[in-house]
Amino acid sequence: MKFSPLVDELIQSLRCLPGVGPKSAQRMAFQLLERDRRAGLKLATALGSAMSDVGHCQSCRTFTEESLCPICASAKRGRAGIICVVETPADVLAIEAGGHFNGRYFVLLGHLSPLDGVGPEELGLARLEQHLAEGEVTELILATNPTVEGDATAHFIADIARRYEVSISRIAHGVPVGGELEYVDSTTLALSFNGRLPL
Amino acid sequence: MKFSPLVDELIQSLRCLPGVGPKSAQRMAFQLLERDRRAGLKLATALGSAMSDVGHCQSCRTFTEESLCPICASAKRGRAGIICVVETPADVLAIEAGGHFNGRYFVLLGHLSPLDGVGPEELGLARLEQHLAEGEVTELILATNPTVEGDATAHFIADIARRYEVSISRIAHGVPVGGELEYVDSTTLALSFNGRLPL
Ligand SMILES: [Zn+2]
Ligand SMILES: [Zn+2]
Repeated sequence: MKFSPLVDELIQSLRCLPGVGPKSAQRMAFQLLERDRRAGLKLATALGSAMSDVGHCQSCRTFTEESLCPICASAKRGRAGIICVVETPADVLAIEAGGHFNGRYFVLLGHLSPLDGVGPEELGLARLEQHLAEGEVTELILATNPTVEGDATAHFIADIARRYEVSISRIAHGVPVGGELEYVDSTTLALSFNGRLPL
Repeated sequence: MKFSPLVDELIQSLRCLPGVGPKSAQRMAFQLLERDRRAGLKLATALGSAMSDVGHCQSCRTFTEESLCPICASAKRGRAGIICVVETPADVLAIEAGGHFNGRYFVLLGHLSPLDGVGPEELGLARLEQHLAEGEVTELILATNPTVEGDATAHFIADIARRYEVSISRIAHGVPVGGELEYVDSTTLALSFNGRLPL
């Protein structure tokens, strides 16, 4: 024990955050205790509520505490008849930051990875197929990461989608091979949408 | 609003942590939501308890939820009759990590800074003087930072301490062990020359 139990516990708990080592955890704990207890309490409440109440959108699987996320709840976003398939909720944010896409999303929450036990079921592909079967989707944009797994996942989904009346494309230009979508700037992302190719 | 209110609020709240920008806050929120809700809930509890219950040690002013911190509560640490004055609780940790100091600490929680309204009262100097007046302290080590403010604070405290039967010292400044001379700033180098010892 370095300090008293509550301080030690706080420093230890902060290390669950990605990229936070022992030194950063200490600095974070001390800064909150010294200068910003109100912000610390607000974070405690936000964490508690989010961890307990946030689930997944019934339509697109992104994080939300409602049954539908704001994008799926918007009739305007449905009117385009486009679904963009991405791997993570962070990818949704990255594409939304560009502001050029007016359709809806489908969030796989991963990619096909048989060795890790991630198959079509884990990616919610039955739900995606249900959207296609309902006939309101005219275009499916596959925006999985440009990695081996992301490509394999895109092709797997394209094979399913070909059974329906829907044009299928894969985003193409601009996204660097081996890069992660989340970290691509919005201009590059816009280019990659414009240059999407039919699969 | 990017996601639903609870997710947005979590991302926003995480930014109160030092060094956490919008991208890191997002990554942290998603990682906790996707992979480690238990750790997130544990952090929420640790934060809530620490922000509400952690105060300052009545003897040395470091953070603790008890009236005395573990070091001040240890009779062994008092026996040496030494008090080391530091600016922050993090400094206590750094010195404890060395494992060579067996006395107690006094944590100023800052340094003299009249323009910011930080004077002797804010630094708890009356409490420090009380320790000296009680006559159990034989040595006072001034380990404030080697900055203009840290030096001024050390000199101010030394002036107070001279009224009591106590030896007063300032930690030595110089080239860090294992460091390369070439990369040490010129002020440090000058101090290290001035403080040179006969071999
Ligand atoms: Zn949704
Ligand atoms: Zn103490």
